[in-house]
Amino acid sequence: MKTIGHFINGTKRVDEGPTQPIYNPSTGEVSKQVVLGDSKTIDEAVIAAKAAFPSWSKTPPAKRARIMFKFKALLEQNADEICQLIGEEHGKIVHDAAGELQRGIENVEYACGAPELLKGEHSRNAGPDIDSWSEFHPLGVVAGITPFNFPAMVPLWMFPMAIVCGNTFILKPSERNPSAAMFIAQLLKEAGLPDGVLNVVNGGKEAVDALLYHPEVEAISFVGSTPIAEYIYTTATAQGKRCQALGGAKNHAIVMPDADLDNVVTSLLGAAFGSSGERCMALSVAVAIGDDIADKMIEALKPAIQELRLGVYSDKENDFGPVITEAHKSKILGHIRSAAEQGANVIIDGSNAAPEGYEKGFFVGPTLIDNVTKDMDSYSAEIFGPVLQIMRVETMEEAIQLINEHEYGNGTCIYTRDGEASRYFVDNIKVGMVGINIPLPVPIASQSFGGWKRSLFGDLFMYGPDGVRFFTRRKTVTQRWPSASLREKKQFSMPT
Amino acid sequence: MKTIGHFINGTKRVDEGPTQPIYNPSTGEVSKQVVLGDSKTIDEAVIAAKAAFPSWSKTPPAKRARIMFKFKALLEQNADEICQLIGEEHGKIVHDAAGELQRGIENVEYACGAPELLKGEHSRNAGPDIDSWSEFHPLGVVAGITPFNFPAMVPLWMFPMAIVCGNTFILKPSERNPSAAMFIAQLLKEAGLPDGVLNVVNGGKEAVDALLYHPEVEAISFVGSTPIAEYIYTTATAQGKRCQALGGAKNHAIVMPDADLDNVVTSLLGAAFGSSGERCMALSVAVAIGDDIADKMIEALKPAIQELRLGVYSDKENDFGPVITEAHKSKILGHIRSAAEQGANVIIDGSNAAPEGYEKGFFVGPTLIDNVTKDMDSYSAEIFGPVLQIMRVETMEEAIQLINEHEYGNGTCIYTRDGEASRYFVDNIKVGMVGINIPLPVPIASQSFGGWKRSLFGDLFMYGPDGVRFFTRRKTVTQRWPSASLREKKQFSMPT
Amino acid sequence: MKTIGHFINGTKRVDEGPTQPIYNPSTGEVSKQVVLGDSKTIDEAVIAAKAAFPSWSKTPPAKRARIMFKFKALLEQNADEICQLIGEEHGKIVHDAAGELQRGIENVEYACGAPELLKGEHSRNAGPDIDSWSEFHPLGVVAGITPFNFPAMVPLWMFPMAIVCGNTFILKPSERNPSAAMFIAQLLKEAGLPDGVLNVVNGGKEAVDALLYHPEVEAISFVGSTPIAEYIYTTATAQGKRCQALGGAKNHAIVMPDADLDNVVTSLLGAAFGSSGERCMALSVAVAIGDDIADKMIEALKPAIQELRLGVYSDKENDFGPVITEAHKSKILGHIRSAAEQGANVIIDGSNAAPEGYEKGFFVGPTLIDNVTKDMDSYSAEIFGPVLQIMRVETMEEAIQLINEHEYGNGTCIYTRDGEASRYFVDNIKVGMVGINIPLPVPIASQSFGGWKRSLFGDLFMYGPDGVRFFTRRKTVTQRWPSASLREKKQFSMPT
Amino acid sequence: MKTIGHFINGTKRVDEGPTQPIYNPSTGEVSKQVVLGDSKTIDEAVIAAKAAFPSWSKTPPAKRARIMFKFKALLEQNADEICQLIGEEHGKIVHDAAGELQRGIENVEYACGAPELLKGEHSRNAGPDIDSWSEFHPLGVVAGITPFNFPAMVPLWMFPMAIVCGNTFILKPSERNPSAAMFIAQLLKEAGLPDGVLNVVNGGKEAVDALLYHPEVEAISFVGSTPIAEYIYTTATAQGKRCQALGGAKNHAIVMPDADLDNVVTSLLGAAFGSSGERCMALSVAVAIGDDIADKMIEALKPAIQELRLGVYSDKENDFGPVITEAHKSKILGHIRSAAEQGANVIIDGSNAAPEGYEKGFFVGPTLIDNVTKDMDSYSAEIFGPVLQIMRVETMEEAIQLINEHEYGNGTCIYTRDGEASRYFVDNIKVGMVGINIPLPVPIASQSFGGWKRSLFGDLFMYGPDGVRFFTRRKTVTQRWPSASLREKKQFSMPT
Repeated sequence: MKTIGHFINGTKRVDEGPTQPIYNPSTGEVSKQVVLGDSKTIDEAVIAAKAAFPSWSKTPPAKRARIMFKFKALLEQNADEICQLIGEEHGKIVHDAAGELQRGIENVEYACGAPELLKGEHSRNAGPDIDSWSEFHPLGVVAGITPFNFPAMVPLWMFPMAIVCGNTFILKPSERNPSAAMFIAQLLKEAGLPDGVLNVVNGGKEAVDALLYHPEVEAISFVGSTPIAEYIYTTATAQGKRCQALGGAKNHAIVMPDADLDNVVTSLLGAAFGSSGERCMALSVAVAIGDDIADKMIEALKPAIQELRLGVYSDKENDFGPVITEAHKSKILGHIRSAAEQGANVIIDGSNAAPEGYEKGFFVGPTLIDNVTKDMDSYSAEIFGPVLQIMRVETMEEAIQLINEHEYGNGTCIYTRDGEASRYFVDNIKVGMVGINIPLPVPIASQSFGGWKRSLFGDLFMYGPDGVRFFTRRKTVTQRWPSASLREKKQFSMPT
Repeated sequence: MKTIGHFINGTKRVDEGPTQPIYNPSTGEVSKQVVLGDSKTIDEAVIAAKAAFPSWSKTPPAKRARIMFKFKALLEQNADEICQLIGEEHGKIVHDAAGELQRGIENVEYACGAPELLKGEHSRNAGPDIDSWSEFHPLGVVAGITPFNFPAMVPLWMFPMAIVCGNTFILKPSERNPSAAMFIAQLLKEAGLPDGVLNVVNGGKEAVDALLYHPEVEAISFVGSTPIAEYIYTTATAQGKRCQALGGAKNHAIVMPDADLDNVVTSLLGAAFGSSGERCMALSVAVAIGDDIADKMIEALKPAIQELRLGVYSDKENDFGPVITEAHKSKILGHIRSAAEQGANVIIDGSNAAPEGYEKGFFVGPTLIDNVTKDMDSYSAEIFGPVLQIMRVETMEEAIQLINEHEYGNGTCIYTRDGEASRYFVDNIKVGMVGINIPLPVPIASQSFGGWKRSLFGDLFMYGPDGVRFFTRRKTVTQRWPSASLREKKQFSMPT
Repeated sequence: MKTIGHFINGTKRVDEGPTQPIYNPSTGEVSKQVVLGDSKTIDEAVIAAKAAFPSWSKTPPAKRARIMFKFKALLEQNADEICQLIGEEHGKIVHDAAGELQRGIENVEYACGAPELLKGEHSRNAGPDIDSWSEFHPLGVVAGITPFNFPAMVPLWMFPMAIVCGNTFILKPSERNPSAAMFIAQLLKEAGLPDGVLNVVNGGKEAVDALLYHPEVEAISFVGSTPIAEYIYTTATAQGKRCQALGGAKNHAIVMPDADLDNVVTSLLGAAFGSSGERCMALSVAVAIGDDIADKMIEALKPAIQELRLGVYSDKENDFGPVITEAHKSKILGHIRSAAEQGANVIIDGSNAAPEGYEKGFFVGPTLIDNVTKDMDSYSAEIFGPVLQIMRVETMEEAIQLINEHEYGNGTCIYTRDGEASRYFVDNIKVGMVGINIPLPVPIASQSFGGWKRSLFGDLFMYGPDGVRFFTRRKTVTQRWPSASLREKKQFSMPT
Repeated sequence: MKTIGHFINGTKRVDEGPTQPIYNPSTGEVSKQVVLGDSKTIDEAVIAAKAAFPSWSKTPPAKRARIMFKFKALLEQNADEICQLIGEEHGKIVHDAAGELQRGIENVEYACGAPELLKGEHSRNAGPDIDSWSEFHPLGVVAGITPFNFPAMVPLWMFPMAIVCGNTFILKPSERNPSAAMFIAQLLKEAGLPDGVLNVVNGGKEAVDALLYHPEVEAISFVGSTPIAEYIYTTATAQGKRCQALGGAKNHAIVMPDADLDNVVTSLLGAAFGSSGERCMALSVAVAIGDDIADKMIEALKPAIQELRLGVYSDKENDFGPVITEAHKSKILGHIRSAAEQGANVIIDGSNAAPEGYEKGFFVGPTLIDNVTKDMDSYSAEIFGPVLQIMRVETMEEAIQLINEHEYGNGTCIYTRDGEASRYFVDNIKVGMVGINIPLPVPIASQSFGGWKRSLFGDLFMYGPDGVRFFTRRKTVTQRWPSASLREKKQFSMPT
């Protein structure tokens, strides 16, 4: 069986020690195993990263960016193989993996703009004959801890920017699907990255804690669930590290009476069920304003949902695949059951939906639940499965209050044609990423990604302009030269 | 005896409860007392601030800025009274207080640019017919906890920016000298600030903790010593608050062999002894490169130091005044003693320097200590008194290493005429604020203030561009309108 | 009779030479006269401005800005007197003059942000050990030539920004109403501006040409009619000067079938008739999409127009006043007649509308003309009077085409609730300033003002960020220091 | 003989009509010929460019940028062939051509950042519930006219930025060496650029005038000599076009007494003689401060110059090649003669320096002239040949005055170790691009290129941030939505 090891100082290696199986979620079978690094492994990665820092941090941004240009080309050339690796270990259909990869590549493209992005501000004549300017220095050795649901994209949110800013990096990808990250790290080496600048250590909690407590790790960028995000953030900051930790979500769409229903239905299908709903930007609650639009929407959703194709990652005709583990499948089914028990109306139940020939795969079919209310357990939780919940309220104001009172504030969306309603929504909603008729308002690479409330711990969003600030430290210089000497003639006789 | 109370919801009030004496450090006598607020007081301030938030946060930035314009004028008109209050309770000479106030006013001027500073970034055609933009929203109720050494300036680093960004604010000034802050808060009300937007609560640790643990306080901005800064930061972040906490400093100047000695001596006097060295940007260590320049510098410093006038705050002829408390005086004298005991050469000892008629004042005279080495306790500590330590090294490289290894990294300076040396210094020094021939490289208001290493806990510097980011939360909007309806002719027949 | 002279080098003076009468348009009587400067006057102003330049341009931006802070306060304190001067010579009602002044003051507020606005961009490690940065230097002596319709605001669009950027300035205001500018210049001197930095020369074409051809004048900022703007631009650029010349306008509003009719009517009244329509942002054409909304709008407009009060500037109850001259009145009446002759439907004719007691004043009443078509002379012309023309088209596409084909492209507006229609409009309209439900989309001071097509000659808009760029010249610096000498130890033995 | 035609609408074609020979300057022989387009050719190119505009301008910036990413890779893959084409027709040695190409590619890299560079500024709450933002729209069909001395780089300064901003482009390269531009245009098509977006028309004055007077051409970007630049600028602006026209140069280096002489000599060789001095950034005058440094510098330069290898472009051992034409060679020799006649000391005379076997090539050897004074004709002229002139002055102040009084103000440099001298120089020199110890201070791609005085006509520099502004037009939008309707509950009953 194939064993996935680490990538340290430019070298792939498989250490002795404990391992964990990697499943193919489509079949339910173990396909590989991954070595679990420990604090010693992290130490070695830090040593490599620290050794690479002095030279890399002094390399001009334009030169660092040029490696990113090559990296982008290599990612594009190797897209099929990366998508295959993602599909095998995560289960998402290859076209969905391609979308994920594309989003990741866009962050590499943004990192190519380093010479522009790293500019400081120059104040000429801050005072009489005094100039002042700011510089943005890399932090040193920094680390990223990434989740199973985007094995390629989330790492690409972090390390291209961190590295192009002059840092050296340790990536701890999800132990459920580490192969895409390992492959990508190899490509960046091919693109010309010096050894030690990017390192990948696989592992579980021990590796995470080793990063959190390592005195030489300057910053931690994390994406995962809220309880872990909070642990990461409070531990890292207590250790004096810079940290941004992105957590869970429960993303609501408000469907206004004037919404374009065709657009609502088409886009909700993708936003709720794409990637089995295992996305922190998945749209899992549609809040209809009035029963009229609620009823129409459900009537239109039902046949559309029934046409969705569930299946193995490698068949492009499929719409979405299995969830990540058997345990996670059980958790989702539990939420569906509890919704029913607590009075919701399960219109379509995907609890028994494994496609033929894949009965052992971790499949959950698309599920539609109406009459969800805010006191239900399945509402307060992030289900992270292919489950779309419908809520009915009388007014937009009620819908806004519902969203603002939820623990999470990652993404949200309004469906309307009305300019005033959309502006009011944007202005008053306590959510970090807002869509107008866009159910997955993932910011483009030149804007920044992040939620409000308990969806993000930290001051700065991820990638885009905030990514640059997260991975650099400001230095402010103030300069005055003493009284002229050399340029005044009388001085010229001195050296002779 | 005058009692200083709180300023909550636009009203000054003196509550029942425990008080603490306020000394006049020049005379050593108690002149006033201050009421110590408790968690109930903080609660009331938060309630006022929260009530003021919805309306204030929706006030356009240009209108908020207009109040800052008036506030600036009022600060200038009332400068003498503010400086008097500072002098009385802190001891610094009125001209030094005027300098402090001026630096504070510059932050108000910067806040007047809110309409420019709060601009988001607009991405037209983020995708086909899709636009995206960022908005910077205020956080809500935020708080500042400020130190005794700049009773006016440090509060002015914080609340004008916080408020002009749309937040409402609770200030907890130093309980040793709260009067300037109280007076200034009143001026801002006169300038037109709605009640509840700025509140001042006096108090000690109980008030601080009440702010740190209050669920409605969104952010804490702090300046003080490193142990407290660390406590503030870890506590606040563990509570899910945004926090920036600025701590201690030990600022070194490198004196190169080609330095302009006149400039060195003149500027070191102010930078080391001004405000009795009670500044986080005070220059407390001069590192001479080679004995030659060390000897010359000391020869020039000695007579200049002996001419310095120590005395009461109200006499403009004085150069600097007492330190803040008797206890602090003792601590400083202890550092002088330990330096001598550990082998340093105390050239000028200010341990017994109280001016005539002010024998009970907390005076320490200007002190010059040569041959300080890095293993001495007085070197690793932040003395925060009028003590200039001289170190001697052979090379600039050694000096840089010394600075980089110190726990603190707030400010530093190089004295040289040499372009290459200064650039190398800026590039390699692990300090947040760097001066070239400027011993107190406090950034101007349009740059940002902050240290590296254990001088600052948090991601963002104080005031300037970072101040704007600290006091706002990013929201990213992505917008697409559905298929045309209204603007296509066929639709026009519908409404008839 | 009072004679208005010049303000040169900080001194008001009345020279010998030709004069021109200044009318009170409300009464039709001559109230003052103005001296017409010639090329000699301009020479003297340039000499003063040139002499003031070296010291002013080296004054730090923060210090220059501080004068603008005082200037703002003085403008506010003297607002009534300024509005009186405007009313007397221009005829606009004092509340309208107050609005004009307020808009001008906002540009002073923006100029107060000079330290932020003048920042250059710093590229650390542009190459190995190479830094590069940009600086924005003032141009030298620059000039502004301003129109009669905003005697205070348009000068305030120009000189505060020019001056705060470090330039020295010569203002040639309209010879019809120079008093407000003269008064304001005096206030800026009171605020602390050094003599010679701002100069006001009155005059006509000779003075204008003297500025255009003077070799020491580096830039010309102009607002006026299109033929003059084109003359100014081509002449100035042929002389190697930087120039921005803003010309005429014909601003259309599209009224969509879903427009909020109350808002349309209320806001059109102000936008079409305010200041007698003598605004380059006046909304002079309303294009209704479909007869239904056209008819409803006209029904609502008619009674509202009849309630408008026409009269003398000093009576705050009046809505608008006279036009600037008898000749201009005749021109406007000619346009009304020609519209009728060419087939339009003059619903309300303001040709004979002088209020009682002001029969000799230059009054034109509010005029409403329906069924205007694009071939009419009154449509292609900028009427610059209180005349609102209604056009009727079938589709929004036709309306857009109409606007895009017009010679001018200054401002425009769409009235709708529909997000998609407004976005399509913004994206496809060839106009520089676009309003959504805002009939006078004059940009705020932190954005920039300018039209497209023949409404603006030049690369950069006026005021806001473009104003900063217009009044500064970029300098790009690239720096590398030669091999280390001073900082390497071996060198230290040399000087001994 | 090979005939170079045009590249219009994605197709290379050779039209009938007049032609002009293309020389190989190394051999003096005609190697190809080029077709000279006329106004009809320009018309066809404009028609193609105009047809391509609507679709291209609506393509999202990220998609446009992606073509630039591919273009960069193709340029790198085809570098040898491009350098060969440059060498053949221009004569510069292939390593110099590679340097030129690399600088051009850096502009393509910068253009890849379009999504960041094209962001507008968003003002939330510009007023109550009013938002405002700026957008940067492409201009339409724009044109570039480029010189012989950088057949690849100067076109790459222009069209990648113009195109990535959404414009369509017509390039008129130098008729002396059009092949590199033709080849590069083909590569951009391969990279995926739609037909018509980039067109290349060859020709002389008729083609230039056709562009200048064509009503559909919105902007002209030009690099060439000052008389032509002035003609281009005044003609284009008189036609209402946006224009930037870069002209001649006479770049001085100040050599201070403390300069690092090794660095001076090494870097002057490349800066004065590289590319035969046919660069607008060539350093053609070294101003020594004091005879001492002048004498030392000359002593060091003499042997170094004598070692320079002059020869054919294809031999990498050569340092530089021939000049562009026989006529230009004669002009350069005339300047050497006149210098001698007017009293200068021609230390090394390159008038008869053709290498063996290339006697008919247009070779001028490296020439060193001492004791040049400001009244000499060869000093006021831009020689544009491998001629280094030495001037001697007593003080830095004199040197600055000399530079500031020269007609041109493109580039300049100071050689010194002294921070104060360099800062004073930067601050007081009237030149657009300033080097500190860098003789060719060509700004990096993320800064902007341009001179002062008669070296640049126009408001904006070339490439970098100014390039973005030159190729876009600002649109300011102000938005307010009318009173709520849809989102207030009472309205929801309406549609039923």
